[in-house]
Amino acid sequence: MHKSLHILADLYDCRGDEKYLTKVSRVKHKVLQMVKRAGFKIVASRFHKFPPGSNVTDGGITGVIVVSESHLAIHTWPEKGFVNFDVFFCSYSRDNSEKTRKIFKEFSSLYKPQKVRRKEVWRD
Amino acid sequence: MHKSLHILADLYDCRGDEKYLTKVSRVKHKVLQMVKRAGFKIVASRFHKFPPGSNVTDGGITGVIVVSESHLAIHTWPEKGFVNFDVFFCSYSRDNSEKTRKIFKEFSSLYKPQKVRRKEVWRD
Repeated sequence: MHKSLHILADLYDCRGDEKYLTKVSRVKHKVLQMVKRAGFKIVASRFHKFPPGSNVTDGGITGVIVVSESHLAIHTWPEKGFVNFDVFFCSYSRDNSEKTRKIFKEFSSLYKPQKVRRKEVWRD
Repeated sequence: MHKSLHILADLYDCRGDEKYLTKVSRVKHKVLQMVKRAGFKIVASRFHKFPPGSNVTDGGITGVIVVSESHLAIHTWPEKGFVNFDVFFCSYSRDNSEKTRKIFKEFSSLYKPQKVRRKEVWRD
């Protein structure tokens, strides 16, 4: 059994298409596509759109995607151009760490953050 | 703005009620209760039951619970008595780190693991 990689990332000052911070359909389509292309079967996905906060910007979104014994989670704050992103793929039957890193890279490239804090945690 | 606490835990050799490893309704009820009691509003929850693997035991479950800009994720492997648990509460408007630790403790007490690997990650 391989160790499983969980990447937790905070993306700051995102300068990609703003719709990735605010539009559920846009983010969902892209992320599901990445996960499927990597060869994973999606068990379920759930996205939620928040109303605008006390400022004038459009509200953020939260999404979770469930893959067998694995998950992705996205939380966006358009008013700060900020995103939390989690991707965790279980490596029980095969080593999925490179796929995990690839999806992180693809996801990040949508948002074009000017700064990233990324943590890799190895789990059983 | 406070830092937000994300706890990632691997629970080994779980000796609590076996139903927490295999029964969606049992786990869902308990976890939603903990989250509500802590004062959080649940946006969505999604659970999935896996069929038994190549051995004779009942299949595991995967569940995600979405709370505003926060999430919990659970993956169980009954055949190994093993559980991955994630709890992340955004502390944007108030410091939720103690609630995060409390929910981890409550969750863990259901499973009675003989060994825990727990990582605390502070995020923006």
